[in-house]
Amino acid sequence: MAESWVNLAERIGSDLHLELPGTGGRRAALIRALRDAVRGGRLAPGTLLPPYRSLAADLGVARNTVADAYAELVAEGWLTARQGSGTRVATGLRTEGAGTEAGRAAPAATPGAAARPVHDLRQGQPDAASFPRTAWLASARRAVNAAPHDAFGPGDPRGRPELRRALAAYLARVRGVRTDPDRVVVCSGFAHALRLLFGGGVLGGPLAVESYGLPFHRSLLAAASVRTVPLALDDDGARVEELAAHDAVRAVLLTPAHQFPTGGPLRPERRAAVVEWARERGALVLEDDYDGEFRYDRRPVGAVQGLDPEHVLYLGSVSKSLSPAVRLGWMVLPERLVDAVLAAKGDREAWTGVTDQLTLADLIESGAYDRHVRRMRQRYRRRRDALVTALAERAPHIRPTGVAAGLHAVLRLPPGTERSVVRAAARRGLAVEALADYRHPGAAMPPRDGLVVGYATPPEHAYAAALRALCEVLPPASL
Amino acid sequence: MAESWVNLAERIGSDLHLELPGTGGRRAALIRALRDAVRGGRLAPGTLLPPYRSLAADLGVARNTVADAYAELVAEGWLTARQGSGTRVATGLRTEGAGTEAGRAAPAATPGAAARPVHDLRQGQPDAASFPRTAWLASARRAVNAAPHDAFGPGDPRGRPELRRALAAYLARVRGVRTDPDRVVVCSGFAHALRLLFGGGVLGGPLAVESYGLPFHRSLLAAASVRTVPLALDDDGARVEELAAHDAVRAVLLTPAHQFPTGGPLRPERRAAVVEWARERGALVLEDDYDGEFRYDRRPVGAVQGLDPEHVLYLGSVSKSLSPAVRLGWMVLPERLVDAVLAAKGDREAWTGVTDQLTLADLIESGAYDRHVRRMRQRYRRRRDALVTALAERAPHIRPTGVAAGLHAVLRLPPGTERSVVRAAARRGLAVEALADYRHPGAAMPPRDGLVVGYATPPEHAYAAALRALCEVLPPASL
Repeated sequence: MAESWVNLAERIGSDLHLELPGTGGRRAALIRALRDAVRGGRLAPGTLLPPYRSLAADLGVARNTVADAYAELVAEGWLTARQGSGTRVATGLRTEGAGTEAGRAAPAATPGAAARPVHDLRQGQPDAASFPRTAWLASARRAVNAAPHDAFGPGDPRGRPELRRALAAYLARVRGVRTDPDRVVVCSGFAHALRLLFGGGVLGGPLAVESYGLPFHRSLLAAASVRTVPLALDDDGARVEELAAHDAVRAVLLTPAHQFPTGGPLRPERRAAVVEWARERGALVLEDDYDGEFRYDRRPVGAVQGLDPEHVLYLGSVSKSLSPAVRLGWMVLPERLVDAVLAAKGDREAWTGVTDQLTLADLIESGAYDRHVRRMRQRYRRRRDALVTALAERAPHIRPTGVAAGLHAVLRLPPGTERSVVRAAARRGLAVEALADYRHPGAAMPPRDGLVVGYATPPEHAYAAALRALCEVLPPASL
Repeated sequence: MAESWVNLAERIGSDLHLELPGTGGRRAALIRALRDAVRGGRLAPGTLLPPYRSLAADLGVARNTVADAYAELVAEGWLTARQGSGTRVATGLRTEGAGTEAGRAAPAATPGAAARPVHDLRQGQPDAASFPRTAWLASARRAVNAAPHDAFGPGDPRGRPELRRALAAYLARVRGVRTDPDRVVVCSGFAHALRLLFGGGVLGGPLAVESYGLPFHRSLLAAASVRTVPLALDDDGARVEELAAHDAVRAVLLTPAHQFPTGGPLRPERRAAVVEWARERGALVLEDDYDGEFRYDRRPVGAVQGLDPEHVLYLGSVSKSLSPAVRLGWMVLPERLVDAVLAAKGDREAWTGVTDQLTLADLIESGAYDRHVRRMRQRYRRRRDALVTALAERAPHIRPTGVAAGLHAVLRLPPGTERSVVRAAARRGLAVEALADYRHPGAAMPPRDGLVVGYATPPEHAYAAALRALCEVLPPASL
C-alpha cells in the first residue's frame, strides 16, 4: 500500500512522522494518525500543531481535510483550539511517556472519560442517565430465580424461549410484526445481525441501501465483501422504484419507520411497492426498525414486515429503547432463512448472555418495558420541542427535519456551510455531526448540507446549554 | 462441490434423498443430513432406517461411519434403537408435517428439550443446577446501582474498568498472571477471542496446536483460513520441542494447566522451553486456561503467562466456573497487541453486556466468586472420586487419566473398542464421547482409544445412575 507521510520534526521539535494509508478516506486516516500520535505520547501535551495549510501541503491533502481532522479531535478532547493561539495537544490526557517505542504504546487516554466535549449533540445513544435500574433489577431477580436449571447450561443459539415468546407478542402488539417465537432469533444487536446474515453466508450482495445511512453499517458490509447500491432519498423516503434498474440486487436494507438519519417515514405506496418488488424477484427487504417506538405526534406506523413476513426480515434491538451497553437484538426471520441463520450462529449461543435475555423477557412481560418506553417518549418529545422552539426563536431560517420521531433531527444548512459549522461547533466544545458523514460514497442524488443533531445524549441538566451552544454556531440568515 | 446421495424411497417408502457434501468428515455430514431429514419431517416418526450395511453401500462410506452416525443420533434423541428391531426415527419429536416443502422446514424439535439422553456424561459444561443465583443477584443489585450513568452509554471495547481491575487482581492472586487492567480485554468467551485474534487480523497462521483438542476450535481456525500444525502429546503434555521443526509457526495454542482433553499438566521444563522458544522466535504462546481453578489434589499450577507476559497471551472465561450461558471471557495481552485487538473489536463494545460485566466484577471483589469456585471444587472432587471408585470396583482394568483436575476424565480403552463402546452407550441412552473425536486430523502420534467422560453435567441426583450405566458398557477385562 502506498503511503504518504510527513516528518513533523522541524515543526514541533520531535522525531515524528505521520503515515496515512494510500487508500480510504483521507480525513479519517489523518484523524486516526493524529489520535495515535497523541495517545502514544509521540505528540506531547501542549505541543503546537502546524497550521492547516502547512500540514495539508506536506501530506498532499486538501486544507479542509486537515481543518476537519483538527476540529474532530478538538471535539473528542485530544486537541484544544483557542482563537489566535493555534491548535495544541490537550493537556491532562493520560498518555504514554515520550520514551515509549513508537507504535507500541498502550491505550491510555479515554476520550469518553478524560476528554469529553463540553456539549454532546451526537446522535446514537439514548439518555444514559435514564436506564431503568430499579425495574431492570426487579426483573432480573424474578427471572433469574424462576429460570429452569438448564438455562445455565449451554445456550440455545435461537435465544431463550422466554425472550422469543415475549418479543413475538410485544412486536405484534406494538409494531404490527406477524411472527411466532420459532422465527425470532436473538443476537447481540443490529451489527451482529448484519455480520451473521452477510458474513455467515446466509445472504450475499449486492445489497441496495439508502443513500444516507450509518457509515459503520457500510463498513461492516464492505468487510463482508458485500457491494452496496445506493437508492436516492426524497421526502417520501427511499426511491424504491430504482430497484427495478438493478437486476443483480436481491435484497434491500431500509429504515422505513424513520429514515436514518434524514428522518421521514417511507410512504405507504412505497412500502407496498418494495414488498411487491421482493415478491416478484424472490428478494428480501431488511427492515431496520432502530427507533420504531419513538414517534411523537401520531401513532407509530407499523412495521413493513406485517405486509409480508416471508419477504421482510425485521431487525430491532434495545440500543435506543434501553441502552447500547445492553447487548440484545433480534431478527424476525422468514421461515426459509431460520435454519441458515442458526447454522451461521453455531451449535451453542456464543454471544448473548442468558441473564440479560431472561431479564428483558420479564421486563417486557411485566409491562415495565412499555412504561419505560412511554416515559422516555415523553422526555424525548420535550427535548425535541425545546430544540424546535430554540431554533424558531434564535435561528428561524434553519429548518429542522425528521422531528416527528426518533432521538435526533437533521438541520438543513445553506449549501457549503456544513463543514465550517461543525468546525465552529468543535471550537466551542460542541460535538455535532455533519450530514455528509452519513452519505454513501456512491450516491448519485445531490448532496445536502446539514447537521445531524442527537437530542438524547446530554444529561437532562446540560441540554439547555447544549442547545444554546448549537444556536450560536449556526450560520446567520444573511449567509 | 461433488455430492453423493442416495434415494431411500425403496427402503422407507417416501420421496427422500440424503445429500452429503463432497468434502469434509463423512460422519458429521451424515449426522447432519439425517438430523435435517428428521427435523424437516422428511423422515417421519417411527420410520425404520436402512441397516448400516445397505446405507453405507448406497452412500459409498464405511459401515462404521453409518453405525456411528446412528449412535450419535440415538444419543441426541432423534433416533431410537432397540435390540432386534433396528433403528427408527424417534416418536414424540415435534417436526414439520410430511407435506412441508423439502429444505424449507422450520426448526422444530430441540434435542436438548424433547429428546435428551437419559444419562449425559459429555464434557463441556459445569453443573447447571449449581449456578449461584442468589450471589449473582446480590452482586447485580450492588453493581448496577453503583455504576456511573455512563456505564449505560456506548460500551468501551476494552470492557468495563471495574471488571478489568477485578480480573487483573483475581488472576494475579489465583493464577499467578502478571498484568495490569489496561492489558485485559473483555470478550464473550474463548471462541470470541479466537475469532478476534485470527479473524480480526491480529495474528495469522500457521498455528501450532495440541494433537488432541476441541474440534470446534479447529473449525473456527479453519474458517479464518488458519492452518494448524499438531504437536504430539505424551505424559508430560505437548511435545513443544517439535516447534523447532516448523519455521513458519509464530504462535502455539496450549492448555498448560490441564491438557484438553487428555488431562495432564505441561511439565515445568516444557513450560520454560516454550517460553524460551517464543522469545527466540519473537513468537507467541496462547494459553487456554479453561479450567485452571479446578485442581483437586494439590495447589493449582500457575499460569505460564507469569513467566513472560510479553510472550504469552492468556485466555479465560466463566464457562466452566459459572456457566457457559454467561457470555464473559477475557484476554490478558502482551502490550504490543492491545491496540490491534481493540481495532479488531471496533469503536464500541458490540458483544458483552454491561450488566454481566458489572455483576462479575462485584462477584469477584466481594469474594463470592471465590466461595462459589471453592464449593464447586469440592463438589466436582466428590464426583471425580465417585468415578474413580466406581471404576476400581466394577471395571478395574479401565484406567482413568487426567483426574487430578478439571470437570472430565479420559478412560483409556483397549485398542479398537472405542466406537463400539460409544455405540453401546448410546443404545442405553448414555451420551459419552469418543477420544477420537478430539484428534487433530493431521496428528502423527499413534491414536489412542478412549472415552471422554464429563462428570459435571448430570444433576446431582442422577450422577450415580450415570456412572452405573457407564460401567455397564465398558468392555470386559477379557477383551
